[in-house]
Amino acid sequence: MMTKEYTVAVVGATGAVGTKMMEQLAKRNFPVGKLKLLASKRSAGKELTFNGQTYTIEEATPEAFEGVDIALFSAGGAVSKALAPAAAERGAVVIDNTSAFRMDPEVPLVVPEVNPQDIAEHKGIIANPNCSTIQMVAALEPIRQAYGLKNLIVSTYQAVSGSGISAIEELKEQSLKFDHPKDVEAHILPVKGDKKHYPIARNVIPQIDVFTENGFTYEEMKMINETKKIMHAQDLPVAATCVRVPVVAGHSESVYIEIEQSGVTAEDIKNVLQGAPGIIVQDDITAQVYPMPIFTEGEDEVFVGRIRKDLAKDNAFHLWVVSDNLLKGAALNSIQIAEKMIEDGLI
Amino acid sequence: MMTKEYTVAVVGATGAVGTKMMEQLAKRNFPVGKLKLLASKRSAGKELTFNGQTYTIEEATPEAFEGVDIALFSAGGAVSKALAPAAAERGAVVIDNTSAFRMDPEVPLVVPEVNPQDIAEHKGIIANPNCSTIQMVAALEPIRQAYGLKNLIVSTYQAVSGSGISAIEELKEQSLKFDHPKDVEAHILPVKGDKKHYPIARNVIPQIDVFTENGFTYEEMKMINETKKIMHAQDLPVAATCVRVPVVAGHSESVYIEIEQSGVTAEDIKNVLQGAPGIIVQDDITAQVYPMPIFTEGEDEVFVGRIRKDLAKDNAFHLWVVSDNLLKGAALNSIQIAEKMIEDGLI
Repeated sequence: MMTKEYTVAVVGATGAVGTKMMEQLAKRNFPVGKLKLLASKRSAGKELTFNGQTYTIEEATPEAFEGVDIALFSAGGAVSKALAPAAAERGAVVIDNTSAFRMDPEVPLVVPEVNPQDIAEHKGIIANPNCSTIQMVAALEPIRQAYGLKNLIVSTYQAVSGSGISAIEELKEQSLKFDHPKDVEAHILPVKGDKKHYPIARNVIPQIDVFTENGFTYEEMKMINETKKIMHAQDLPVAATCVRVPVVAGHSESVYIEIEQSGVTAEDIKNVLQGAPGIIVQDDITAQVYPMPIFTEGEDEVFVGRIRKDLAKDNAFHLWVVSDNLLKGAALNSIQIAEKMIEDGLI
Repeated sequence: MMTKEYTVAVVGATGAVGTKMMEQLAKRNFPVGKLKLLASKRSAGKELTFNGQTYTIEEATPEAFEGVDIALFSAGGAVSKALAPAAAERGAVVIDNTSAFRMDPEVPLVVPEVNPQDIAEHKGIIANPNCSTIQMVAALEPIRQAYGLKNLIVSTYQAVSGSGISAIEELKEQSLKFDHPKDVEAHILPVKGDKKHYPIARNVIPQIDVFTENGFTYEEMKMINETKKIMHAQDLPVAATCVRVPVVAGHSESVYIEIEQSGVTAEDIKNVLQGAPGIIVQDDITAQVYPMPIFTEGEDEVFVGRIRKDLAKDNAFHLWVVSDNLLKGAALNSIQIAEKMIEDGLI
């Protein structure tokens, strides 16, 4: 039996996430019939290899999406805003990894383990949530389904790869100047386009994305608003503090939750997570086993550890959630959305 | 008028905190009459300079404390347990920077800005709280006094210097191998004497100190129990998640609080903190001003920023608290306890 194959476009294939999208398509044997690599005029003409074949990057124009079945966007919000509707009009299903359409009520925001049913509602564009949101909701949804969720406070420890390849380079350069901190220059972090830049090596920066008027950053507001949208829980109190740390890949999250049900034990939470899709429980304190970003780099799953009951509140728990922000947090989740569409016969 | 001078002993003068204690004594013109540097037999005979004068380290024995007025201990819990009572018996007031006596009901646990009145209760030993606790309670006490405090959840981002000089060396060696992660070796962190060691460069480790049976680490339990003791608030719910990050000096804390009073604004909290002793508010998001450990290294104060009201709860706030863990978190706070004793005529 022939598997149906799809014409797939990758927009922003040379970026940190785009590179991982190509790797995931290959690794997961995604049924790619034809592959189109699209990028800005500047990158057009460059060559990339996919499954041993060489592809030339074309300029991303509205016309370039003719005949495309699935368009994976990861070239920044401005590119998505400009071209995703044009791609959708031409019949492609856009899976957009930027924040451009995430809060658009017409656009489903999907983590396949959490709200796969929302995929069917799409009108041409499906949004991939923010990296730090995806891993958190993937870890919390099984708990919510089992015991209900009534409060959520998260503090993040986010890797620089979330800011792209240039941020990784910046961390590297600064790290190699460990003994010469005065020679350290900062041009990228915390936010490429913002006014001030600070060193990330030997430092942590409590700013990811720019600030909003309420004192929270956009990254924090993404975690708050996207979590509610994905979980269909507009009344769930969610609070976030997002912090950049000198880690290359892998976001870590210190998550505090209150559940609705009483009398639940940490062991119950572990059991619920152990059977959950895409989740690996790494939690054995007697053997110092807990997730760490350096060991989750390159891994597909969301790793959960340090699962413990709060000492003051019976229905409160603490969890430590780590995942590769470029994989489940970005590229992998996008591909999984496409796979789910195929599985459900939606494309 | 002659200022009274004191015979001061520093136990563990060659360590990360001991070095800072000597610096603080000199910098703050502490009225040191005679200085005795005490350490293990291994370090005895080594020479150190203080205020331009050379001192030879003597072995720390019970007899070495004869004639000592103030004994600053920072040579590990075992040394404090063995020698602090002997020093106190000989008439010295011990200010102990280890965890040995912190939860002893006979021993005051003091942050001078928070509970100076407890100093007078001492019976020869005063305990200096854990580094991550000190900066947090220093930042929260003014808020508690103004508005009451009824819930506290903290996630920390702690520097390696809290694990001593060898941990700083380890971070340095690993950082310089940025491009060769497979060559990285770990022998110190997360806990020198524990079974397993993990890299800290390019990583974060959700373990500081060993684990207790309830799933929390000792570091987390220190933050929980010490906070209640210092604030005389046994019923205050406190939760902590303590994480080591690749930072040399300066602990950062993402702090969530609920206060008792309603209708308080973030501006009110800022105003309360702006006038508080030992606190510097660094909070101007329009100019990307917030505290970061790389800039608080070597500074005496506790820096607070990202002060914002929770979006779901009227009486909840988020703060970002950063301080040099070796200074206010350790050496400086110890010296300030001694200064307060002198000021209050208690010695």
